[in-house]
Amino acid sequence: MTRVVALGGGHGLAASLSALRHVCDDITAIVTVADDGGSSGRLRQEFGVLPPGDLRMALSALCAESDWGHQWRDVLQHRFSGDGPLGGHALGNLLILALWDLDPEPVYGLDLVGRLLNARGRVLPMAAVPLDITAQVALDPDRLDLCTEIRGQDGVAKTSGHVRSVALIPPDPPAHPEAISALAQADWIIFGPGSWFTSVLPHLLVPKLRQALVASPARRLLTLNLEMNTLETRGFSAVRHIETLREHAPDLRLDIVLADPTIVDDVAALEEAVAGLGARLVIADVSNPRTPGAHDPLRLAAAYRDIFGD
Amino acid sequence: MTRVVALGGGHGLAASLSALRHVCDDITAIVTVADDGGSSGRLRQEFGVLPPGDLRMALSALCAESDWGHQWRDVLQHRFSGDGPLGGHALGNLLILALWDLDPEPVYGLDLVGRLLNARGRVLPMAAVPLDITAQVALDPDRLDLCTEIRGQDGVAKTSGHVRSVALIPPDPPAHPEAISALAQADWIIFGPGSWFTSVLPHLLVPKLRQALVASPARRLLTLNLEMNTLETRGFSAVRHIETLREHAPDLRLDIVLADPTIVDDVAALEEAVAGLGARLVIADVSNPRTPGAHDPLRLAAAYRDIFGD
Repeated sequence: MTRVVALGGGHGLAASLSALRHVCDDITAIVTVADDGGSSGRLRQEFGVLPPGDLRMALSALCAESDWGHQWRDVLQHRFSGDGPLGGHALGNLLILALWDLDPEPVYGLDLVGRLLNARGRVLPMAAVPLDITAQVALDPDRLDLCTEIRGQDGVAKTSGHVRSVALIPPDPPAHPEAISALAQADWIIFGPGSWFTSVLPHLLVPKLRQALVASPARRLLTLNLEMNTLETRGFSAVRHIETLREHAPDLRLDIVLADPTIVDDVAALEEAVAGLGARLVIADVSNPRTPGAHDPLRLAAAYRDIFGD
Repeated sequence: MTRVVALGGGHGLAASLSALRHVCDDITAIVTVADDGGSSGRLRQEFGVLPPGDLRMALSALCAESDWGHQWRDVLQHRFSGDGPLGGHALGNLLILALWDLDPEPVYGLDLVGRLLNARGRVLPMAAVPLDITAQVALDPDRLDLCTEIRGQDGVAKTSGHVRSVALIPPDPPAHPEAISALAQADWIIFGPGSWFTSVLPHLLVPKLRQALVASPARRLLTLNLEMNTLETRGFSAVRHIETLREHAPDLRLDIVLADPTIVDDVAALEEAVAGLGARLVIADVSNPRTPGAHDPLRLAAAYRDIFGD
């Protein structure tokens, strides 16, 4: 059985998990816990807990492939309407919160939610404490060397400036032993897709996690995004995404970089950047023309299966 | 298969359902929707929905008898701590609310929650709209004829006066066709135990429900409470409970009245009151010495089985 650890947060990680469910049974998601906006931000403030939103999305993506599982997925993702005390909260965030209220060890509660939902696979937080992301942001596109610091994932993801680099507060948070151990036992570790600075890179900034990522005997796969040009990655090419990853984790080596043909404009340049990480470029059709910008779970599953089987 | 409809609300109905689960597979609960206090009251105010609290307790009582089911039951019943926007809300109330937000037909949402929890049996609201209970309350124990009106279930349940009678606002609310149809098809209809004025009698005040209760070919069983003297029923004997029921529904006939020996001080008087309802008195040990005031689900199950089998 192929043991896979997928890293990330938000919709990108959910896409990766939705694909992995089709091709392997032993899945561990290690999820960002730096969100400070929306429902997660409010719960973090009211209860001092880890922000549950990205953990909820990962659990939703691992719900069983049945009517029952799909209904649970929709309910977990449902947000209450209105501007009242409950308005905007996702039900799944409140479910996770209830479990944490019953037992303060986050992993115990997440495992229990997984069992209650008959979820396939395990969801772990990337750190044992809530994190804040800070970013060096250039507000003037002609002076990329002149940076201001923005604090908070929500602010970084929505900045009107050019994000140059990100860091975490606290800078050396405790990692979960279960996450470290999952990385040591994995056959494959999957990075991306996802918001580059706020979902994909943060794991590399937790020193104990980075050490475990670098030391793991697993093979490492990076799936590039379908949308290059986002608020966080204004004007970024595929090559620039890889360079940014390398700048944030110079000691990390990869085995495979997976890219959809639509984002490859200069194959030679991309192959060179990929080789700089020690990896091989795989170009495969993993998009769905009917949902622009989002990976197709089944095409992504096919690409993962082909790569794992090689 | 014995088809049973249990009526009530709160802990009393939950006790009845917990017992019924052991002795029959086809259970429908018809539940009060007049709560205006606590989490239910706040949700009713914020979203204009039926108060979900009593519905949640009924669903919790119908959760599967397994570790998985017991964990779900505990999670549904869990209340958030603190005084913040979420403090005091029961997770199960929020789950029901989420389903109602996805589809405004309450029975559809309750059926879906039941399926998501693999609950045994069905939970229906006693009316299709939120209700208010009003009570005629005598504040002077020496002048029981001199009454003031108190509005709201929470206020009635906690009054320092003597409750003389209750009524509903609106006085003729729409009943759910599913509830009417369940009553028509039942083999047994179970009233009580529960808060007499705010959980047991309200069903009799919904005209369409009372007509269906009176017209049903089912046999009717009333389980008396273990605690006679509550805030709502100050100084009430077992006989007074029955008289009060009769005053609120003169046309209702019963088949069996079930009483624990601890509440029977005058057997002859109780038998006479019971006969006035057309019923036979069954005295059976249904209490648990370790949980004073609460019915023992297994002893109550044994009593129900013996009665159903007769």
